[in-house]
Amino acid sequence: MDIKQTWVEKIKLVDRALDSFLPKAEVYPQIIHEAMRYSVFAGGKRIRPLLMFFTTGLFTDQWQRAVPAACALELIHTYSLIHDDLPAMDDDDYRRGKPTSHRVFGEATAILAGDGLLTLAFALLSGKKYYNNAFSEAYFKEVSPEISLHVISELAEAAGSLGMIAGQILDLEAEGKTVDMEMLDDINTRKTGALITAAIRCGALLGEAQAEELRQLSIYASLLGKGFQVVDDLLDVEGDENKMGKLTGMDKVRQKSTVVSLCGADAAKKLRDNLYNNALAALDSFKENGDELSSLTRFIFYRDY
Amino acid sequence: MDIKQTWVEKIKLVDRALDSFLPKAEVYPQIIHEAMRYSVFAGGKRIRPLLMFFTTGLFTDQWQRAVPAACALELIHTYSLIHDDLPAMDDDDYRRGKPTSHRVFGEATAILAGDGLLTLAFALLSGKKYYNNAFSEAYFKEVSPEISLHVISELAEAAGSLGMIAGQILDLEAEGKTVDMEMLDDINTRKTGALITAAIRCGALLGEAQAEELRQLSIYASLLGKGFQVVDDLLDVEGDENKMGKLTGMDKVRQKSTVVSLCGADAAKKLRDNLYNNALAALDSFKENGDELSSLTRFIFYRDY
Repeated sequence: MDIKQTWVEKIKLVDRALDSFLPKAEVYPQIIHEAMRYSVFAGGKRIRPLLMFFTTGLFTDQWQRAVPAACALELIHTYSLIHDDLPAMDDDDYRRGKPTSHRVFGEATAILAGDGLLTLAFALLSGKKYYNNAFSEAYFKEVSPEISLHVISELAEAAGSLGMIAGQILDLEAEGKTVDMEMLDDINTRKTGALITAAIRCGALLGEAQAEELRQLSIYASLLGKGFQVVDDLLDVEGDENKMGKLTGMDKVRQKSTVVSLCGADAAKKLRDNLYNNALAALDSFKENGDELSSLTRFIFYRDY
Repeated sequence: MDIKQTWVEKIKLVDRALDSFLPKAEVYPQIIHEAMRYSVFAGGKRIRPLLMFFTTGLFTDQWQRAVPAACALELIHTYSLIHDDLPAMDDDDYRRGKPTSHRVFGEATAILAGDGLLTLAFALLSGKKYYNNAFSEAYFKEVSPEISLHVISELAEAAGSLGMIAGQILDLEAEGKTVDMEMLDDINTRKTGALITAAIRCGALLGEAQAEELRQLSIYASLLGKGFQVVDDLLDVEGDENKMGKLTGMDKVRQKSTVVSLCGADAAKKLRDNLYNNALAALDSFKENGDELSSLTRFIFYRDY
């Protein structure tokens, strides 16, 4: 598919940009930088960066200005996975088909690598040392300091103790208990939805969207975030372990309530289809430049990994 | 002492500001906010905020504009203590006379509380939701977005994998080994010095210091950071456990190389006195408004807790 090739190119760009923002593996103390790089380059789908690019692309051709924020978001996402996988949390040995950070580097280094990625996310959006980085050029040239601060704020709020971190705490508390759909929706909105929403909202801010456009895209983002999680839950039941690079059936092992466990796979698929149609409808007013975002939305709802 | 009363008032102000920036303990999910607050209000000396205020005070009466950055720095400092104390790291049961976070809340919540504090530090320096906070008023009114970004960058770099996190990794690696003075100086410069330097440099930036003034204050900060660590090492040998709220003699138990273990207490005291005199000399060109910073410097070098 032609449009997919443009995604691959953008994903490669994100990887090159991340490579340039992260300290090289040879930089002292090497072990922390090896650990940070190990998880960042462990084969993420880079869905959040693409979402951000395509959202900025609704408003301007200059989507490249979103590269640093897209990388910051990916660093935050990666840090959250490292910490989630720790023995004290989900205690996962594998992620994306590779041993998790603490299995390779030990717990102390894994915790610190996560800390380092979270911190770097804010450094690269604010620091003069990145002014001369080719991947930051458009960001520092085209984006006002006011909007930079707004983007930093969106990311920090989404990742914070009312957003993603709240989701992780609630998820841990819910393990082994049956929760109702409302509670489950709240957990997922925070744990998964917050960063998805940040991708969309930061993309819109970087495109200098108007308040009403931002509001409309936040509705889209909320539907997308819910859909994202339903698909994850379905894949855990029906997905192909080889394609996904992780064990399936883990939600059941952990006695985790999911949409699938509460309502069954058929109802979950109906919910997914509904969310998809509503998400697309929420993009209706952005038809003009919205092809890539619509295609990516379809991919997210009907992916098999 | 009269001047100390002004410190107490500023410390109380920091506590009130932190209280207003942190989500209330009743905010859902309560456990994460209880944990974040537990460590922030566990009796820190607030030396870094005072350093920042007095440095801003070298340049302007409007030191209140430094309150959010001072709180952000204190949140970062607190997060680093929570993560340092974890079983996978230093495995400490007590800090400032109280059980450490993971002893009270469990490891998972302690890790996430640290993550939440680090994230909040960047949120409160960037976010519109803090515009109407009385403690942020001067910051958002008087500080340009360019300087805000610079402050965020200084904090992120100081806390990052080339700064404080590097220091923690190196410190863990060095445990049980004898390291030489050069190596020890490098560890301390990163682990302790980086945040001390950030306090001074952010204070100067918020005072709109000139480049040459910033350079001079960075020299002062470097000497102060070294002195801070030497005093910590001395207190571990000669300090009063009741005053300090933690066990002494732990460096020996952990076979940690310190200035005292490498050179003896007498040489460490001479080093401290030298660093103190040089630090004061580095403040020479700021005599006019430098009384509080000089007094605080004396306190830091000759404190007994």
